[in-house]
Amino acid sequence: MQNIYYFTPMYRLISIVGGNTASQEESGFAFSLGGLLAGMGFSVVCGGGGGVMEAACMGCAEEGGLTVGILSGEERTAANPFVSLALPTGIGVSRNRMVVLAGEAVCAVGGAYGTLSEIALALQAGKPVCGFGNWDSIPGVRKVSSPQEAVEFVLEMIGEN
Amino acid sequence: MQNIYYFTPMYRLISIVGGNTASQEESGFAFSLGGLLAGMGFSVVCGGGGGVMEAACMGCAEEGGLTVGILSGEERTAANPFVSLALPTGIGVSRNRMVVLAGEAVCAVGGAYGTLSEIALALQAGKPVCGFGNWDSIPGVRKVSSPQEAVEFVLEMIGEN
Amino acid sequence: MQNIYYFTPMYRLISIVGGNTASQEESGFAFSLGGLLAGMGFSVVCGGGGGVMEAACMGCAEEGGLTVGILSGEERTAANPFVSLALPTGIGVSRNRMVVLAGEAVCAVGGAYGTLSEIALALQAGKPVCGFGNWDSIPGVRKVSSPQEAVEFVLEMIGEN
Amino acid sequence: MQNIYYFTPMYRLISIVGGNTASQEESGFAFSLGGLLAGMGFSVVCGGGGGVMEAACMGCAEEGGLTVGILSGEERTAANPFVSLALPTGIGVSRNRMVVLAGEAVCAVGGAYGTLSEIALALQAGKPVCGFGNWDSIPGVRKVSSPQEAVEFVLEMIGEN
Repeated sequence: MQNIYYFTPMYRLISIVGGNTASQEESGFAFSLGGLLAGMGFSVVCGGGGGVMEAACMGCAEEGGLTVGILSGEERTAANPFVSLALPTGIGVSRNRMVVLAGEAVCAVGGAYGTLSEIALALQAGKPVCGFGNWDSIPGVRKVSSPQEAVEFVLEMIGEN
Repeated sequence: MQNIYYFTPMYRLISIVGGNTASQEESGFAFSLGGLLAGMGFSVVCGGGGGVMEAACMGCAEEGGLTVGILSGEERTAANPFVSLALPTGIGVSRNRMVVLAGEAVCAVGGAYGTLSEIALALQAGKPVCGFGNWDSIPGVRKVSSPQEAVEFVLEMIGEN
Repeated sequence: MQNIYYFTPMYRLISIVGGNTASQEESGFAFSLGGLLAGMGFSVVCGGGGGVMEAACMGCAEEGGLTVGILSGEERTAANPFVSLALPTGIGVSRNRMVVLAGEAVCAVGGAYGTLSEIALALQAGKPVCGFGNWDSIPGVRKVSSPQEAVEFVLEMIGEN
Repeated sequence: MQNIYYFTPMYRLISIVGGNTASQEESGFAFSLGGLLAGMGFSVVCGGGGGVMEAACMGCAEEGGLTVGILSGEERTAANPFVSLALPTGIGVSRNRMVVLAGEAVCAVGGAYGTLSEIALALQAGKPVCGFGNWDSIPGVRKVSSPQEAVEFVLEMIGEN
């Protein structure tokens, strides 16, 4: 053991949740949001699947950001191709709570009941949550209409450093 | 969405499991092992706690490696200071299985029953497992006596690329 | 091993979800609902806590029904006193999904974000869901205004035998 | 709400863990153990699968005992036919910890790495553990050679009431 201690800088994660399939508008939103977050030094964590998750990872990776996929299954190979750190959990849909606990804030893009569960679990855990599309009128969710607005919400809620 | 696809290189993870407290010998082993793995381009994933986990992260971080802590609690601040990516799960000891599913191979260093559970879960999932100390005579565990030997085992089992 | 096979009759479970604290109206609803379900031969499964959960168990137990509590913590002693079968999970809020998977149908009574997560997870798993109070206007939830109506919904959705 | 409070008697559960396939000797042991436990007023909790689990449930059910199956999958229909209370978890092998947390004591019969993980998780949680066959020499496990001896161990460790 050595005398010099390195205090490792922590990656700062933002959760992006949404459907495994996505409309073009939702994918575009998620792609831009991932890129903007990466540009500000954040990493993206998601469920590692397709649709919104894949678009968010693609946008983040293109800007050089770290992308984390918390997978429902047991095989890391199931992650979408833009996940750089794949974590298979083997606990199915119950991994949803981990996706939202991992981020300092949560951005929901479209999605169905799985996404609603992530929004509810995030709010229950006290996370700031913004939403674009389907579930943006759930009480406690800040409705946003652009990726820029989502990033502003994140920065407003968790600070810039 | 754009036409250019970036195929993100995946981080390759090795799980290091062991006690939350550790003897000097075990800490030294874990520290060296973390460093050697980082030097070969691997990242370390562990439970994010103290003892063996902290030593492994310290060794890995010192060599510039990525360190992932899959935490039992809900707060990322509970991670040891050498974790660069903290993932709170909120599922307690049940996160042990995720720690071993995340790695391509598992190295056990000392430890008590929690570590034994990780060894068993790893073997059940078909992961290569090597052990130093307490549980190295469990059938299916490759007994190793040095960090170098542990790294050789890992390379032998999962290949270098 | 013997030649005679006993085909064990399965308990039929209905999930009742709701807040750990409850208004008098919500408690009264849950108590009556638990009793009505028990009277029709169903067992009640819930998170084993206070509020709506305790009232539902009390109502069910009073009519001789089996009450199952799937607890967030590790100690069965944390169950409310009307739980006859306490199952500690140690996985915290992630046990919510198990509560709704256990039932053939789900009745939500009041509740906050935890209850919303249970509703979402139930709908995602394809369970019939009825709601009284807070979340009764979530798409996919059948709004009910009395325990009798909730029971009718359950019978309509899953049949009487 | 009424004035009369019913303090529901709690079912007392013993966990029986073991392989999904079993030798005739192991099945016979589990069958007898399930029956003896039921005869003393205990219920059996297990993973709800085949092999040792099915034999234990069969033995318990034949003596009129309650049998609880905590299933890895999402469908209660996957339980063996002697499970009277089926609880699908959808979290795969991670449900192992719940099986052992549910019981006041744990009896392991044969089994492979999954069973070893249950033994380790039980010991880590402070549960008394006895073992017949494969893993009976793990430190902390009381080796037993008959179902009667297993029951004596259980009674010795947790008392008769």
